[in-house]
Amino acid sequence: MAKEGSEMTEETQQMIEKQLSNENEPVESSCDGKDMRAVILSGFGGLNKLRVTKKAMPEPVDGEVKIRVKACGLNFLDLLVRQGTIDSPPKPPVVPGFECCGIVESVGENTQGFEIGDRVMAFVNYNAWAEVVCTSVDFIYKMPDEMSFTEAAAFSLNYVAAYMMLFEVANLRAGMSVLVHSAGGSVGQAVAQLCSTVPNVTVFGIASCFKHTSIKGSVTHLFDRSTDYIQEVKKISPEGVDIVLDCLSGENTGKSLSLLKPLGTYILYGASNMVTGETKSFFSFAKSWWQVEKVNLFKLYEENKVIAGFSLLSLLFKQKKCSLVKLVMEKLLHLYKEKKIKPVVDSLWALEEVKEAMQRIHDRGNIGKLILDLDKPPTPLMASDSTETSEAGEEEEETEGDDIKERMPFIH
Amino acid sequence: MAKEGSEMTEETQQMIEKQLSNENEPVESSCDGKDMRAVILSGFGGLNKLRVTKKAMPEPVDGEVKIRVKACGLNFLDLLVRQGTIDSPPKPPVVPGFECCGIVESVGENTQGFEIGDRVMAFVNYNAWAEVVCTSVDFIYKMPDEMSFTEAAAFSLNYVAAYMMLFEVANLRAGMSVLVHSAGGSVGQAVAQLCSTVPNVTVFGIASCFKHTSIKGSVTHLFDRSTDYIQEVKKISPEGVDIVLDCLSGENTGKSLSLLKPLGTYILYGASNMVTGETKSFFSFAKSWWQVEKVNLFKLYEENKVIAGFSLLSLLFKQKKCSLVKLVMEKLLHLYKEKKIKPVVDSLWALEEVKEAMQRIHDRGNIGKLILDLDKPPTPLMASDSTETSEAGEEEEETEGDDIKERMPFIH
Repeated sequence: MAKEGSEMTEETQQMIEKQLSNENEPVESSCDGKDMRAVILSGFGGLNKLRVTKKAMPEPVDGEVKIRVKACGLNFLDLLVRQGTIDSPPKPPVVPGFECCGIVESVGENTQGFEIGDRVMAFVNYNAWAEVVCTSVDFIYKMPDEMSFTEAAAFSLNYVAAYMMLFEVANLRAGMSVLVHSAGGSVGQAVAQLCSTVPNVTVFGIASCFKHTSIKGSVTHLFDRSTDYIQEVKKISPEGVDIVLDCLSGENTGKSLSLLKPLGTYILYGASNMVTGETKSFFSFAKSWWQVEKVNLFKLYEENKVIAGFSLLSLLFKQKKCSLVKLVMEKLLHLYKEKKIKPVVDSLWALEEVKEAMQRIHDRGNIGKLILDLDKPPTPLMASDSTETSEAGEEEEETEGDDIKERMPFIH
Repeated sequence: MAKEGSEMTEETQQMIEKQLSNENEPVESSCDGKDMRAVILSGFGGLNKLRVTKKAMPEPVDGEVKIRVKACGLNFLDLLVRQGTIDSPPKPPVVPGFECCGIVESVGENTQGFEIGDRVMAFVNYNAWAEVVCTSVDFIYKMPDEMSFTEAAAFSLNYVAAYMMLFEVANLRAGMSVLVHSAGGSVGQAVAQLCSTVPNVTVFGIASCFKHTSIKGSVTHLFDRSTDYIQEVKKISPEGVDIVLDCLSGENTGKSLSLLKPLGTYILYGASNMVTGETKSFFSFAKSWWQVEKVNLFKLYEENKVIAGFSLLSLLFKQKKCSLVKLVMEKLLHLYKEKKIKPVVDSLWALEEVKEAMQRIHDRGNIGKLILDLDKPPTPLMASDSTETSEAGEEEEETEGDDIKERMPFIH
């Protein structure tokens, strides 16, 4: 795929140069069976904390399957992890990433149901952005024959989250209305498709103006984030909406609550508004994220409203609800086979392009899912488009990336 | 019904004496068609703010039906209204009461579907505790032939609230578990019965020890409120419960949240813990009720929990969801006709006994519903049981009633 008009960080250029210079050596290709390429987060902070490096290949223990990774999903949450603004962040250095797909390369004991050669998607509690991943059979799902690896990498986290929010938390039924923030994002698009499987559901989507042409067919009504969308929605539905799905939080929470119908449900599933720039102190974000947003319980009582939080990763890895998620995945794969849902992919990136990919998701430039494609070589830098990005030593001073906008053509 | 071992306030005694002395006069019986008996709340405060008095009889306007009341429901909320600790309290003097049943005596224009002589139950936004009530057809439901007025007065508010919390807010399904505080109360008993209509639902009930013998058959597990019921529930269900229904609030809210399973739902539908005695300043209650209870939204996110408030009266009278409530009532009456649910009645009281009834609900002495029975004469005072109750002029000094415990025999 040509990378016209693209821009690239200096470090990515160095990575590619190194790879090209090593072309005849096997060190980066992991053919020795012991090392693999992986993205490493060396500490919390800006994009400069990310590196692609060699790492010892994991081997499956009891109950685990070893997957030769073909593609990984990139989510907004990965950005919060990089900044360290999640609760209980991992101890760096760590390989980021929570979902991948690929081919089973070997299996540990007690992995009934999975065999070498199976095409699978998987959740993993970090360590997804690598050539090889080991994870428990509790978090692995067989891919339908007709599903590509690109689709699979865009499927698991977004559709499971969207499904569980709509049907497990909020009980979406015929005739209801749903407002989804970030309608152009990968969860937003999954929500829109799943809503269309229920009769007579009205979907209000909020998205940046430049995405409207691409996604207007996926929702009933589409509003620009920068307009007074609360008033626009109320013009159409004066009573409000039944379900609000919010990945932004911040001032958005209050606005969203005001839009809920009686007995309506607001679900917070992210806090991307807490990330406003690469330069800000991530400790101040952490404070907003964990301490500010409180809800008056008695206001809920008077107004007959429901508030929920949803974190699929907590559900899987802390709360061990993997059996429930397996049931949800079965339903979703059934819908996929019936062609009622289909992942929307924004763009594919090589591992070495992870910074550009992350910048794109930071800038909310994507429509649908960003994917790290393990088979994709980094797109060679075009001399006329190169920009240098500073890489300051101190987090507070980082300025990288904020001016990088359109780097990649969409693949659809 | 004999009133053995009963106690009575001085004022009730005076009321009865007055009625007996007027036996040959029609003034209290409302036969003149213009006046009726009604309970009046003259201002916010203690029991001394309640009087039974004569009042002009209302006439139905457009869309209203006039009901000759046979029985009224008494709810904990009426106690909060009396103290003025609800949001937007009415301006006294006011006739309390939100539900009644009786016979249609006349109809206004546009009341299709209702005729004189119909036996009906009704919600009303105050004014229920009177011989005659007028309310909109939006809030009136025909009683099944086999339903008594006593049952009807115990039916509407409790079962509609219980049903909507379990099935509209929380989506109760087979195999789930429900914890209900005040399991012996009228909502608690309705919840237990409705849970039994869904296969394999486990009900944990919390109730004062003295109620256990009476209600143990209605729930799966029963715990004493004064024990560490959190630990007891966790012994049986280490993961917690799917749904918690809480009418207490206060410290109970945090405990209840800690008992929720991932994806579980906590519903607050009252705040009876805010009423700890008749003597405390009700303004301090108001403060606790409206300002203290706040929930950290991001804790909900990490823990995958759902928090809801439910107020049936807001839903009906502020939010105008009367069509939805009509549908719910249809389902409930179907369950009643199938004998799957049956109201539990604690005791019947004459209008003039409203103070004793209110004291009983304040003391949590009831199992099931307290009902004001318009046909019931006040039980004559037994000389040996009479006690004088002080009626201080200042709210802060009131001490009435706190020592009154068992006044009435249960009627079943």
